[in-house]
Amino acid sequence: MLLCRVWIRMTTEHRDGPVVVTGGAGAVGSVLTRTLLSRDATVRVIDNLSSGRREHLPVQPGRLFLTVADVRDAEATAHEYDGAREVWHLAANTDIRRGTSNRRIDLELGTLATFEVLERARQADVPKFFFASSSVVYGWPKVLPTPEDYAPLEPESLYAASKLAAEGFCSAYAHLYGMRMFIFRFANIIGPGMTHGILYDFFDKLRRDPSRLEVLGDGRQSKSYLRTEDCVDGMLLAGERANEAVNVYNLGSRDHISAREIAEKVIAAHGGHARIEYTGGVRGWSGDVPVQLLAIDRIEKLGWKPRWSSAEAIDRTISEIAAARGIRP
Amino acid sequence: MLLCRVWIRMTTEHRDGPVVVTGGAGAVGSVLTRTLLSRDATVRVIDNLSSGRREHLPVQPGRLFLTVADVRDAEATAHEYDGAREVWHLAANTDIRRGTSNRRIDLELGTLATFEVLERARQADVPKFFFASSSVVYGWPKVLPTPEDYAPLEPESLYAASKLAAEGFCSAYAHLYGMRMFIFRFANIIGPGMTHGILYDFFDKLRRDPSRLEVLGDGRQSKSYLRTEDCVDGMLLAGERANEAVNVYNLGSRDHISAREIAEKVIAAHGGHARIEYTGGVRGWSGDVPVQLLAIDRIEKLGWKPRWSSAEAIDRTISEIAAARGIRP
Repeated sequence: MLLCRVWIRMTTEHRDGPVVVTGGAGAVGSVLTRTLLSRDATVRVIDNLSSGRREHLPVQPGRLFLTVADVRDAEATAHEYDGAREVWHLAANTDIRRGTSNRRIDLELGTLATFEVLERARQADVPKFFFASSSVVYGWPKVLPTPEDYAPLEPESLYAASKLAAEGFCSAYAHLYGMRMFIFRFANIIGPGMTHGILYDFFDKLRRDPSRLEVLGDGRQSKSYLRTEDCVDGMLLAGERANEAVNVYNLGSRDHISAREIAEKVIAAHGGHARIEYTGGVRGWSGDVPVQLLAIDRIEKLGWKPRWSSAEAIDRTISEIAAARGIRP
Repeated sequence: MLLCRVWIRMTTEHRDGPVVVTGGAGAVGSVLTRTLLSRDATVRVIDNLSSGRREHLPVQPGRLFLTVADVRDAEATAHEYDGAREVWHLAANTDIRRGTSNRRIDLELGTLATFEVLERARQADVPKFFFASSSVVYGWPKVLPTPEDYAPLEPESLYAASKLAAEGFCSAYAHLYGMRMFIFRFANIIGPGMTHGILYDFFDKLRRDPSRLEVLGDGRQSKSYLRTEDCVDGMLLAGERANEAVNVYNLGSRDHISAREIAEKVIAAHGGHARIEYTGGVRGWSGDVPVQLLAIDRIEKLGWKPRWSSAEAIDRTISEIAAARGIRP
């Protein structure tokens, strides 16, 4: 009966309905939005422009609508979900470290915001829901590469807790209301248009003082990086091919790269003269998970492969940032 | 350094400090509070008396303090946590089905309330935190008995989602602030002083109409039941003997019992004349998990064993309820 309800929805008003993308002006969201537009979708972006930017989005009157609002703002987003065939909930606090000084921000912008978006999607009978979660829900995993059915899930930061919490509510909404759910646990996603992350941190530090580069921790923290384009391709493919009530997929590359190697690459892009100074300790910051490498067999079985390895993704993004900032080695 | 901080706390003001029990006037909380009092603890109960009752608690001036307040009420609970050596957070919505009509209640009373209590405990530098979670975080598990490291965790109700969310924040607080964390995933806990649950439901229905007993679902839903006394003993033992940063323990009995068998037992207690009418379907209600049997090897290794099986716990509780209501078969 549930399947029947979903089917009726899909075959009537929702099939050609617009796609809602929260955080759609952000680094991942804007790549998703452009890809959806290239596939003839009508897209409604909800973004408060806290880290997203208007200029990340093309101007396509009648096809792309941007509502500048917090996703929790019921009034401003009252009709955004009407008739939508999919909701992609990517809006979140993008700065994990911010949660250590403002303890409520991830609860608010992660968990509560997700609950509100789920509830709006339910009210509008949206049949498919996509949620951008994170590899940090695994905590510091004892198994590498870490598969989707790894346990225990032991978040070590409030950002991680807020993502696990949001996943839980996504799962409940899927089971209770027949919304097909897609949950993606991201490796470190990098690409143009970001405002935070290790690369921007290093570039900013070298701009302030080109002679030295402070690296948080001992530099041996090692993580997997994935380009925004690969990330978006993976999510779209899973949305087409995965058929469970709740579909959970890791999205990362097959290798990882240490903070030290990344520091050396960024220094090389600046001419290679800075010396590295480590702050020490195995973690970059309180709540940081020092190792992250995701098993991606599940999504690869659907037919997806990352085009770039972690090292290639880092190289590509360094070149883009350097070019944008007019830096020549 | 973290261990050192905890050690200093334990050996100075906190070692003999009071124990805070939220929901301490409830069916589990009041058994815990009485046991703590019998072990010479000073206990501060915070309970809004929504399902807890004042008369569940003994009168022990100077040893037991009851604050009638919502745990989210910052003003009323401002000094409750000062100097406490342990916080036991048991307060929650006790009626899982309520979440299907009021979609915000579990988010509010489960997740947000837990976050507030964690935050108060952190501010007061409380070294040990105990959280009453639930077997429902496993969703409908493919493995029975279900161990603590089962995955994926796929909640099927908003109550379940709120518990998983709260577990996530407990884990983050443990890792970020050095609070030792104890998370208990309860089977169905039964005993005196409850306001909800299958037994009360059946007794109430037979009081209204002694000729028939409506059983939700097909009656084959089968779950493990544990007496409140066993539950409290298990938690206290884990608190003494478990030493991880985050300690997760299932608490249940080794057997399970079907709704049909329970219905027959309750009918027998009423003289055996009612006929059972099933509403049909594998689930009792939307979001209900039809099978639940927890692996309890982890807690048994600490030296705990349930005194009563599920069937014995049901029999014992039926006798108590029948006696309290003056029912003779």
